[in-house]
Amino acid sequence: MKVSKASKTLKAPKLASPQSPIALYEKRRQKLYDWMAEEGTHLVMLEDSDRFRDPSVRWLSGHPGDALLFLAIDRRCILAPWDINMAMLHAEADAFIPYADLDLRPEKALQAVTAFCKMPKGMRIEIPASTPYPTFLKYVEELSDYDVICHEGGIWEEIELCRSVKDEAEITLYRTISAYTNEIIDRLEANVRSGKLTTEIDIALFIEAQSRAMGCEGSGFPTIAAGPARSFAIHAFPPHTSGAFGGDGLSILDFGIKLEGYTSEVTLTFARGDLSKAQEKMLTLVEKAHKIALSMVKGGVPARSIGAEVDAFFARSKKKMPHGLGHGIGLDVHEPPNLRSRSDNNWVLEPGMIITIEPALYDPVHGGCRMENNILVTETGAEQLTAARIIRL
Amino acid sequence: MKVSKASKTLKAPKLASPQSPIALYEKRRQKLYDWMAEEGTHLVMLEDSDRFRDPSVRWLSGHPGDALLFLAIDRRCILAPWDINMAMLHAEADAFIPYADLDLRPEKALQAVTAFCKMPKGMRIEIPASTPYPTFLKYVEELSDYDVICHEGGIWEEIELCRSVKDEAEITLYRTISAYTNEIIDRLEANVRSGKLTTEIDIALFIEAQSRAMGCEGSGFPTIAAGPARSFAIHAFPPHTSGAFGGDGLSILDFGIKLEGYTSEVTLTFARGDLSKAQEKMLTLVEKAHKIALSMVKGGVPARSIGAEVDAFFARSKKKMPHGLGHGIGLDVHEPPNLRSRSDNNWVLEPGMIITIEPALYDPVHGGCRMENNILVTETGAEQLTAARIIRL
Repeated sequence: MKVSKASKTLKAPKLASPQSPIALYEKRRQKLYDWMAEEGTHLVMLEDSDRFRDPSVRWLSGHPGDALLFLAIDRRCILAPWDINMAMLHAEADAFIPYADLDLRPEKALQAVTAFCKMPKGMRIEIPASTPYPTFLKYVEELSDYDVICHEGGIWEEIELCRSVKDEAEITLYRTISAYTNEIIDRLEANVRSGKLTTEIDIALFIEAQSRAMGCEGSGFPTIAAGPARSFAIHAFPPHTSGAFGGDGLSILDFGIKLEGYTSEVTLTFARGDLSKAQEKMLTLVEKAHKIALSMVKGGVPARSIGAEVDAFFARSKKKMPHGLGHGIGLDVHEPPNLRSRSDNNWVLEPGMIITIEPALYDPVHGGCRMENNILVTETGAEQLTAARIIRL
Repeated sequence: MKVSKASKTLKAPKLASPQSPIALYEKRRQKLYDWMAEEGTHLVMLEDSDRFRDPSVRWLSGHPGDALLFLAIDRRCILAPWDINMAMLHAEADAFIPYADLDLRPEKALQAVTAFCKMPKGMRIEIPASTPYPTFLKYVEELSDYDVICHEGGIWEEIELCRSVKDEAEITLYRTISAYTNEIIDRLEANVRSGKLTTEIDIALFIEAQSRAMGCEGSGFPTIAAGPARSFAIHAFPPHTSGAFGGDGLSILDFGIKLEGYTSEVTLTFARGDLSKAQEKMLTLVEKAHKIALSMVKGGVPARSIGAEVDAFFARSKKKMPHGLGHGIGLDVHEPPNLRSRSDNNWVLEPGMIITIEPALYDPVHGGCRMENNILVTETGAEQLTAARIIRL
């Protein structure tokens, strides 16, 4: 097994930040090392792989994917990337272990790292909370000298909390992503109005091409473009087809673009022709719900209360939204905080959180309407970053 | 909680098959009910959600995603879809429970289903092997009247085995997917040769547009188009950029197209200009390795032995491939059997399996070369379905 020390000449990814990305990753890790020292955790393993995607690996090291990341109590960060060439280009860590030399086995990597860090027996190792029960049993068996912990709280809650409040570099980046997203929204509107974009797939390919031309990594998730025949579904399937978009009735367009790993998510509704009373009512209610939600967003507000207010608003018109009101966005398209009204939702909004607000109504006959924007939570209220809207053609 | 009986007028997805899809799903389920009866398992829960994607839900019911699926010992299949409208359009099951009515909580859904099936106490429930340890503890607590089992073998192994050998309808579908893939390969070659496609993003958008026009659901995964400057990586990051493709040196193109949930996966290498000796050698070795592997494929052959043979072949030239030789494809882009040479790989090829063969070599200076095709395993050998190749420009 070869362990390479990090070279000082490593090329790091550029983050739209006044600070260097290396300083940023290190700063994020330092906070976690402090937590580990306080809680008595000696080693933490993060995994980003086919079976679990965990963008925290990228958040802590810049490495874009397929790797194990270890944080050790001696304040060292060790990366075991699947593709060592890629890591040399993108990642920042104190040491690198090629994962292929460990047969791509996490338990073998854990053993290698405990040896590398000269960890005494009995030390406490936290493995991902997403670790399947059968895999957990294997770790416990293979690392019988250590105290292997798998739970939802602990470091995972700490990472979730840290990631849910964006730092200055991330907020700056989101202003850029939002500006790009808004530019695409305007171009989409113009092209749908002029009849240049008439099918779902045209719309999806337009977004893909535009976002790449802007330097993005592409769409943040598969674009959902659902013409009037398919807009009744929360998430139309397939996400887009060669069918018509923007014709008479209601069309839904849900898309995001990804820049340096971070995604936006907006939803527009396009309405054309003589709408039924039911359709008009859906549009009015959704627009109003968006307004209500936005007016409530502010640091210190329980996220649940906003979801509950919108649910109650819809209920007064005997309507029900079949999903939560919104969620945090970042390196994942869905991340904490959640805005749903469920009683077990204990998230409280904090300045620096970036969330979606996406009130919506769906009807098997009349189609669907959703309006979704990205919102920066501030101390005094909300800053709406994106300009998604209901567009009447 | 509303439980709707399946309507006979349900619209089912079309599968390129002589049998009706409903009969197909039912046939797949019957095999699992038999297994359950034999093993004494009373209820099985499958989950397809944001946290685990499990296309077995689609394989057993036609429902394209975001749902729980229950198989009960009384030979009934119950679907709890996130989007009930979508389920009415796509899914085939004996009963439907809207998941939103259960607060999108799997433990609540399990309780609802045990009540619906009038399951006596003490019965055995198998939950997904991918269930995180902390979630498993919650199930055990909330379903204390039942014997909740989470392990890797059992029904999960049975489903894996069943899915690894494609049925007649799936093989027919793969002939169509492969024909479409081959058509796209030919058009790509022509357009790269003629200079119409010159950037990575051009290539990716071309594939996306072509596949949708053919009626596909789109790409099976993000297209990896890596020009000479980036082909050294196993999986270039980002998967494609606005950078040049097909210029002097080696470019790698790894793509798949998805039809009715099933994906192809092929990799082409484009070589242009005066190649270095090292590059020429890589191309020759990879082509030869592909030939060796293909000649070994046959029902009854241990998958590991093919991986080991190719590893040994490369080793004789002092080369090492940093990943496995291939894998099954289907509703997942990576599924069993695996072809890697690792000693714990116990898969034996069977007629009806559809696998990839993807020998490759990567060099930080000279770039990378990979050649990947989709192969149907037969009793007497192999049928190469796709025509990916090394293209000299």
